[in-house]
Amino acid sequence: MTVDVDRWALEDLYAEYARLLDDGPLDEWPSLFLEDCLYLAIPRENYDAGLPLATFRCESRGMLQDRVRAVQETIMYEPRYLRHHITQIRPLERSEGSTSVTAHYSVLEVLHDELPRILSVGRYLDVVVRDHDGALRFAEKRAVYDSVMVPNTIVYPL
Amino acid sequence: MTVDVDRWALEDLYAEYARLLDDGPLDEWPSLFLEDCLYLAIPRENYDAGLPLATFRCESRGMLQDRVRAVQETIMYEPRYLRHHITQIRPLERSEGSTSVTAHYSVLEVLHDELPRILSVGRYLDVVVRDHDGALRFAEKRAVYDSVMVPNTIVYPL
Amino acid sequence: MTVDVDRWALEDLYAEYARLLDDGPLDEWPSLFLEDCLYLAIPRENYDAGLPLATFRCESRGMLQDRVRAVQETIMYEPRYLRHHITQIRPLERSEGSTSVTAHYSVLEVLHDELPRILSVGRYLDVVVRDHDGALRFAEKRAVYDSVMVPNTIVYPL
Repeated sequence: MTVDVDRWALEDLYAEYARLLDDGPLDEWPSLFLEDCLYLAIPRENYDAGLPLATFRCESRGMLQDRVRAVQETIMYEPRYLRHHITQIRPLERSEGSTSVTAHYSVLEVLHDELPRILSVGRYLDVVVRDHDGALRFAEKRAVYDSVMVPNTIVYPL
Repeated sequence: MTVDVDRWALEDLYAEYARLLDDGPLDEWPSLFLEDCLYLAIPRENYDAGLPLATFRCESRGMLQDRVRAVQETIMYEPRYLRHHITQIRPLERSEGSTSVTAHYSVLEVLHDELPRILSVGRYLDVVVRDHDGALRFAEKRAVYDSVMVPNTIVYPL
Repeated sequence: MTVDVDRWALEDLYAEYARLLDDGPLDEWPSLFLEDCLYLAIPRENYDAGLPLATFRCESRGMLQDRVRAVQETIMYEPRYLRHHITQIRPLERSEGSTSVTAHYSVLEVLHDELPRILSVGRYLDVVVRDHDGALRFAEKRAVYDSVMVPNTIVYPL
């Protein structure tokens, strides 16, 4: 069931993904995606029912960059720290040149003078490819979250 | 201290274990155990004191299948989503043909219209073997949980 | 960006670190550090601002042993269980003989008759070296925690 990709390179891709979201610089986060990519954050109930409605939907690296700028410049929100745990990262067989990958994630959130809490939990259903420059990048990323309720707002990508 | 097993195959075994419990199909979960196996969920205080009393105790794959049927058909409970994180998966030396493995786990739970919360945390103390068909399977699995209190009911296996 | 260290040996070092803190024996925890080492627990705000103030600061293995004795003999606190998840363990390039390593951690805490909760989340910024006896050990460990608030007291090292 598992295919021959460099597993450590894959682990490092997810570590970099988590680092850029949690510790920044957030500007570099879109560089982990192909120019022509798909990023969705979608509730599990919709995903399981085959419904396409997603909370976030970006269809190119440019749209991801717009999202980053919105977080940095436009959206009003209380300052917070996030911390990802991405586990059970697992490549599955797929067509030539790309690998589908599943993983479990949780995002813990810390607001000023509050105890840490769970912002979001779920799984990633991704497609990873080796880009022209040899780097692994996300061609597709679906963050399928288990929880519809969130403590306040989801500002950052999952 | 660490022995020569295929570590990625071991990682994948735990990823599959987590997937089948969290995303299903739950029916396939018992297939990760030997026909002749031992599955225990046991509070840490009992385990540390050498007391045998366990919350769940299954002594064959058939008993695990019964447990799955109970979850699917018999037990009344509020619908919920679970999400495992299994980390620090680590093989330790052991007698020929089998490897003892330790890991840390947490299970996050999402009930309808509630925030995610921690259902259970603890460690796995397992024995993994290569079965006749070449697949890695659990000969023994002990989920030693740190917390006696649970938010409501533990329905699914840990 | 990633260097050639034995990644599984590194994973096992962190697993051992987590095991000794969570399941003991705590006495052995300092043996994962060099004699001449640095251990800091530091709030993220201070770290990001370049401020040196740390909550814990130990500058040798002997100081870590003192800390362990304090936990075991001196400090008054309510009994508790801890459980670490250490993920995204990632070696980064560095000067000869030592490797800087980053990782994400969370510590879940269980007090008697209470639900599990999040004690601390953050990242480790470490320097790992191969010691004279061939074992990997921490030359430096910085636990940079995201949350200033804690549910009660931080007794154990992070």
